[in-house]
Amino acid sequence: MILLDGNKLSTIIRKEISDRVRDFCKTDTRPPHLAAILIGDNPASQSYVKNKIKACEEVGYASTLIKKPLHTTESELLDIVQRLNENKEIDGYIVQLPLPRHIDEMKINLAIDPSKDVDGFHPNNFGRMALGITAYHPATPAGIMMMFDRYQISTEGKHCVVLGRSNIVGTPISLLMSKKTKPGNATVTIAHSRTENLKEICLSADIIIAALGIPFFVKADMVKPNAVIIDVGINKIEDASNPRGYRLVGDVDFEQVKNKVSAITPVPGGVGPMTITALIENTWKAYSKIYNNN
Amino acid sequence: MILLDGNKLSTIIRKEISDRVRDFCKTDTRPPHLAAILIGDNPASQSYVKNKIKACEEVGYASTLIKKPLHTTESELLDIVQRLNENKEIDGYIVQLPLPRHIDEMKINLAIDPSKDVDGFHPNNFGRMALGITAYHPATPAGIMMMFDRYQISTEGKHCVVLGRSNIVGTPISLLMSKKTKPGNATVTIAHSRTENLKEICLSADIIIAALGIPFFVKADMVKPNAVIIDVGINKIEDASNPRGYRLVGDVDFEQVKNKVSAITPVPGGVGPMTITALIENTWKAYSKIYNNN
Repeated sequence: MILLDGNKLSTIIRKEISDRVRDFCKTDTRPPHLAAILIGDNPASQSYVKNKIKACEEVGYASTLIKKPLHTTESELLDIVQRLNENKEIDGYIVQLPLPRHIDEMKINLAIDPSKDVDGFHPNNFGRMALGITAYHPATPAGIMMMFDRYQISTEGKHCVVLGRSNIVGTPISLLMSKKTKPGNATVTIAHSRTENLKEICLSADIIIAALGIPFFVKADMVKPNAVIIDVGINKIEDASNPRGYRLVGDVDFEQVKNKVSAITPVPGGVGPMTITALIENTWKAYSKIYNNN
Repeated sequence: MILLDGNKLSTIIRKEISDRVRDFCKTDTRPPHLAAILIGDNPASQSYVKNKIKACEEVGYASTLIKKPLHTTESELLDIVQRLNENKEIDGYIVQLPLPRHIDEMKINLAIDPSKDVDGFHPNNFGRMALGITAYHPATPAGIMMMFDRYQISTEGKHCVVLGRSNIVGTPISLLMSKKTKPGNATVTIAHSRTENLKEICLSADIIIAALGIPFFVKADMVKPNAVIIDVGINKIEDASNPRGYRLVGDVDFEQVKNKVSAITPVPGGVGPMTITALIENTWKAYSKIYNNN
């Protein structure tokens, strides 16, 4: 069994990006610049944003954190978005989700300049990805594709079952995996809460990408021997033995499954760090102006 | 076995649209207006465009056909597109595909104002559809969804196998079928030329949507009893007994399959007319300004 180590792989890729930044950004060239908007004080969001800013520092990017209180209005946030769209010193930015309930996430998403949309959630980016043309791919699926690529996991013609159809993971990874690309070129099944015969479908999978948000959902009896397992879940479960009172687990029952499969991501330390690495790579693309907004 | 009759259903839906136009467009309100650009003299394209214009007349829309010779340059076509974008009397328009080889289809596609893009191929529309927000859906998949709806074919939780991953049919129908909508909410498998065990996958399907462009590809031994078959293929095969020397057949071996299934579309007269009806419906949406381009 190969442990698909997202921390280790991220270190390697970030080192490459860092070398690229050093080589490209000589004395009079500014480095790439990522901004992040964080509304409120959700602890998980704070931690994600902190890790993104830290990754920027690691590779030599400039970064800006715009932190606003929970009661920030939609129109105030739209103003910030507008200013970032116009700011020529900032190549790309993200609005950390979830937003407070009084703010319409899609409205904010639609206001982001697609050429700075390094999270890849604007319809223009999402559509370009779906059509197979140059785009920023959402960071989690992009990180998974990097993992297949670097670990040289063959996906062509394989049956890949995606559990979950969210806009952030399930839908975009199913699109990327079905395209005629390498990695990619897989037969993809998108399964979800309404799927009948889920166990049978999982048992036919060469690759399972689990993104349901249900702890330990994928059990050993749902997995074909030698399958490849990508676990996108990050679920908090109570754990009295842990000083924090909880621990993080995936959507896959790792302990049950690990000896049956050919490769598997751990949680934490699998898809999570790859997501941030993909965001860093997207920011490089924004800096390099991979496409104009048309 | 139910024959999913696209001609009959289109007649009913177009009558409804025609009533809507008559009720809405009183003396001083202009009707919806669709324009079509046709480059060159490909007989199939001519026939498709003719049917689209005819459907406009049928429902009481205004229509404009812009016919240009094969040697039209990309920049000339971009000028026409620009003029249609600016023309307030035209609600939506299509550029009939395929375009001659010297013109970059995607470049033309990207120049279309998404709010007038009734073919739904602009990334902004395609992305909105993929994200599940208001959009023009490409006409063929939209026509298939109408068919499921009107024939009350249950799709929720069913296993739908899509054969083909084109941007025009396979990819968008797989997106629409997987969303939490009615119809929709299916478990969707996207299969294609690289798929291993294709026969086995087809045999597990409750619904097969064939959009490969290979005549008679789906045989009786690939179909589960009582499956629903949607045949998107329109293939010309030689037929000496036909005065034209050829006839049109689908991707499904209709004669072999028809007695095994619960419902099936004929070719011609199945998905084809529904595609045009969906375009007519999209034009109504454009006329009603379902979304601004943002």
